[in-house]
Amino acid sequence: MEQIGNAIQDIYPEDVAWCYGCGRLNESGYHFRTGWDEEKEKTLTIYSPKPEHTAIPGFVYGGLIASLIDCHGTGSASLFLHRKNGHEIGDGITPPRFVTGSLRVNFLKPTPNDFLLIAIGNVTEIHPKKFKVETIVYAGNEQVACGEVIAVVMPETFAKK
Amino acid sequence: MEQIGNAIQDIYPEDVAWCYGCGRLNESGYHFRTGWDEEKEKTLTIYSPKPEHTAIPGFVYGGLIASLIDCHGTGSASLFLHRKNGHEIGDGITPPRFVTGSLRVNFLKPTPNDFLLIAIGNVTEIHPKKFKVETIVYAGNEQVACGEVIAVVMPETFAKK
Repeated sequence: MEQIGNAIQDIYPEDVAWCYGCGRLNESGYHFRTGWDEEKEKTLTIYSPKPEHTAIPGFVYGGLIASLIDCHGTGSASLFLHRKNGHEIGDGITPPRFVTGSLRVNFLKPTPNDFLLIAIGNVTEIHPKKFKVETIVYAGNEQVACGEVIAVVMPETFAKK
Repeated sequence: MEQIGNAIQDIYPEDVAWCYGCGRLNESGYHFRTGWDEEKEKTLTIYSPKPEHTAIPGFVYGGLIASLIDCHGTGSASLFLHRKNGHEIGDGITPPRFVTGSLRVNFLKPTPNDFLLIAIGNVTEIHPKKFKVETIVYAGNEQVACGEVIAVVMPETFAKK
């Protein structure tokens, strides 16, 4: 699978769709898009690194992988809670928006830059407003990183600025 | 202090100076620069977020903060080991280059986007080739994130591609 069909970021409200990682309205960003896998059990984000996303030449920048795990985490939590609330992408209901409480990334091996990055996530509820997203990142068929995001329903303080 | 004078990234060898986060030769990247603080005890990286580095409008993208902690970590470890080896920036000796083994970031509060980000690091040796860098990130005077990088001396496999 090399395409995400319905992505949760496609239906974030406009005022919170500007994230550099996953905001569809941010012209400069990565435009990560996160959806369910075919079995609708795990979450998926797929990204093709650009030539400038270099660590050591030939390998992908770790900060990009961290960003991927981060936005994949908040997107996965949004997908999960949206479903728990009885909704799916396409039914016209606005999904909850999450922010990242914490992020952990383990870099397992150098990530070659000539493969798609595929993040696969597993979501667990740890509190009604807090979800753990465990993610494995593959470059092609090879597992190159894993990580965990604690995603928190966006607090009101974010909107008050 | 709003400027880094001597930065370790300024003297990385050319073939490993292309990192999207901190490579001086990567035209598209962030160009993070890491040096010692005035007392030469802690490490410092200072960055001014660009308008596109948005999370929710008005706040800084968490992936940028993760990238900052990441490159600040590898740069800090390089500074630390270079000194341990008897060298300082400017003596003409090439410093060791590190890669990231793991990265952890705790986001403590929304990070307003109209302040300089200041990462302050503390380095501990945990193995002759492995260093722990604990970092606090400030936006102006306010602590907005903290994190930890395990930085590893760059293995030969990186150069073999």
